[in-house]
Amino acid sequence: MKEEVPLSVKLQFFEVKTREQVWGDYRRFAPVGLEEIPLDRAYNRILGEPIIADEDLPSFARATVDGYAVRARDSFGASESQPALLAVVGEVDMGDVPPFEVGSGEAARIPTGGMLPAGADSVVMVEYTEELDRRSVAISRSVAPLENVIGRGDDVRAGKEVLPPGRRLRAQEIGLLAGLGRTKVKGSRRPRVAVVSSGDEIVPAEREPGPAQLRDINSHSLAALVEEGGGEPWQLGVIPDEFESLRAACEQALKKADICLISGGSSVGTRDLTLQVLGSFPDTEVLVHGVAISPGKPTILVRMGDRAFWGLPGHVASAMVVFHVLVRPFMDHLRGIPPSLGDPWPLRARLSRNVASKQGREDFIRVRLWRQGEGLVAEPILGESGLISTLVRADGLVRIDRHTEGIYAGELVEVLKI
Amino acid sequence: MKEEVPLSVKLQFFEVKTREQVWGDYRRFAPVGLEEIPLDRAYNRILGEPIIADEDLPSFARATVDGYAVRARDSFGASESQPALLAVVGEVDMGDVPPFEVGSGEAARIPTGGMLPAGADSVVMVEYTEELDRRSVAISRSVAPLENVIGRGDDVRAGKEVLPPGRRLRAQEIGLLAGLGRTKVKGSRRPRVAVVSSGDEIVPAEREPGPAQLRDINSHSLAALVEEGGGEPWQLGVIPDEFESLRAACEQALKKADICLISGGSSVGTRDLTLQVLGSFPDTEVLVHGVAISPGKPTILVRMGDRAFWGLPGHVASAMVVFHVLVRPFMDHLRGIPPSLGDPWPLRARLSRNVASKQGREDFIRVRLWRQGEGLVAEPILGESGLISTLVRADGLVRIDRHTEGIYAGELVEVLKI
Repeated sequence: MKEEVPLSVKLQFFEVKTREQVWGDYRRFAPVGLEEIPLDRAYNRILGEPIIADEDLPSFARATVDGYAVRARDSFGASESQPALLAVVGEVDMGDVPPFEVGSGEAARIPTGGMLPAGADSVVMVEYTEELDRRSVAISRSVAPLENVIGRGDDVRAGKEVLPPGRRLRAQEIGLLAGLGRTKVKGSRRPRVAVVSSGDEIVPAEREPGPAQLRDINSHSLAALVEEGGGEPWQLGVIPDEFESLRAACEQALKKADICLISGGSSVGTRDLTLQVLGSFPDTEVLVHGVAISPGKPTILVRMGDRAFWGLPGHVASAMVVFHVLVRPFMDHLRGIPPSLGDPWPLRARLSRNVASKQGREDFIRVRLWRQGEGLVAEPILGESGLISTLVRADGLVRIDRHTEGIYAGELVEVLKI
Repeated sequence: MKEEVPLSVKLQFFEVKTREQVWGDYRRFAPVGLEEIPLDRAYNRILGEPIIADEDLPSFARATVDGYAVRARDSFGASESQPALLAVVGEVDMGDVPPFEVGSGEAARIPTGGMLPAGADSVVMVEYTEELDRRSVAISRSVAPLENVIGRGDDVRAGKEVLPPGRRLRAQEIGLLAGLGRTKVKGSRRPRVAVVSSGDEIVPAEREPGPAQLRDINSHSLAALVEEGGGEPWQLGVIPDEFESLRAACEQALKKADICLISGGSSVGTRDLTLQVLGSFPDTEVLVHGVAISPGKPTILVRMGDRAFWGLPGHVASAMVVFHVLVRPFMDHLRGIPPSLGDPWPLRARLSRNVASKQGREDFIRVRLWRQGEGLVAEPILGESGLISTLVRADGLVRIDRHTEGIYAGELVEVLKI
């Protein structure tokens, strides 16, 4: 079963790509496709269809306050000293079409949300009225036409696209969809992401490690990131650095997952093993083998049809940074939205001290944030990328462009929250 | 069954409270308590116990690169022209305790993550070595003691508190817990939040509304916000504005929910009904009846033991704003963390135009964001609080302090993302 790495794989060994080039490769993968989602399960999902309103919302003019529905011109000039006297012709019941009209010189009691009676064009707040008897009311303030009224279609007009495909569904989009009667929507399927931790020194978290062993961290932190990124994590556990075992795990992933993350293999030997295993499948294409980012240089991306196999660094902090910088944006692509580095509205902070960086390499520096005066300060966190505690202390990542040699203390930087 | 509103309820009718006072009232409610959570379900949960490391992490010194484990002093002065020649005494296998020592003038092959052999104190990267034969290696660069090594306990020291109670569990905290073998943790139970939409003009979203009716929006947007806030939404549906029906829904909520949200009742009549229904339960205490915020003034908070009943405005945007400003912080309190207005690191943006505000009232303005140069601009969104579309267009809320009369165009404001 053990095969040689095919030539096509070998040839691409040392082509280190930039992050932008890697993101460009994502176009080689088709998005995961759509599924029907019940509205009350749709929070935070990505809309897969345009939503065109097929009716006006609201479908009738309604009062926004408690008061009296009137013709605005009957209130013109009304004041506390000179109130306008109107005849009360009825009372609007919530949810019912008023069985009367409001004519000139007339008014009707109306509760917030009630349907404006025919003839009326505005509502006088109850605070500015005094009912003299059940048949007449004094109005002590004038209203403009449409005042205290939501008109038909003021929220949404029939025929209008109210939500574009690719929109993340927040609570307000869910509300709008409910208002339009869309209790099911088409949204991107959640990408299924298999997570494998490889390494002979790794034992499952629930096991007691031997004296030269460590518990598996990456499976768990990566699965949490998959969840955060809108995917469905599928933990395949700890796999020894051994051809057959790793191949079996990849075969399992290939059947049911859209993405397989293999962390570990930070040593040259294991890195080669991961490639060797992936190369043993038919129609394997190595898209990425090395990325000009730090941490995360030894990252691998292999395509098998529309399945993506990512080889992530074994160092715990590196694996997480690569997830934020490369894998989550890849999940974005699979979910039908353009890859991005997190939030479209990044935080900005001033760096607390100089940070050097190598030209030609994009650096992602772990930082801790604090408030200072009106703004934020980002303090770089020192420490090996093998230490998970550096990320536990971190609030975000600061990106240092590949074209600069570093950032000076006091410069404003964008912070990608993690 | 229908009872009069008790005096204690009536007396407090018009005591409008500030947001801070309302938040202060939260101390009257006990947090929901803890439950055991499997680690892989713990993402985004609130830790309920301090985590003290009971062992060093890692429990042994390990290499962070592929190379040769040496005694640093044997490398001192080594250079390309004058390499140090060391005897190779063995090879470290991943996961195994090396069965040899590295003495003076000696070296051992070691992969990334391998256990440092006794006697060695540093690792020379393979890039700076040349193996002359299987028994000897030339070192062309010196290393300092501990270079390319993660020492025992470098990540976490035994006995140290590594996570405090109240910490939100992000991916990195999950990873750390896995590394320490904590595959279960104690975390706050998710508050169960019953959601009721009241109103005779409201029909369930899946039903065709009559000519003076609207589909239920609030149940759905509020349920999504509950989910976002770490709670478990429980939709009780649309309830007519009628004593017995509303009381039955409240009774149901009282049995199984920590919080019940009743939206609707924006008209004075329904508002009274909500209070009348809540007042008909024994041991009811009206803590809040009116809040000095806009939108959201008619908000009600009633305590029955540790159960909280919130009366929220019926206007769709008002209900959501009140959730962000009052209910989510209340959920924070129940989850064992101090109430806050969203993220501890708020976005800052410049207001695009003047916004007036009434003194004595805290305003929450819906804004749309865009980038301008290096910063962000927040553009106020006009429109009635009865329009869900205003929130669909919004990226956040800008708070205007109760002591100011407004904010000028160009001023820096904090944006609460929604």
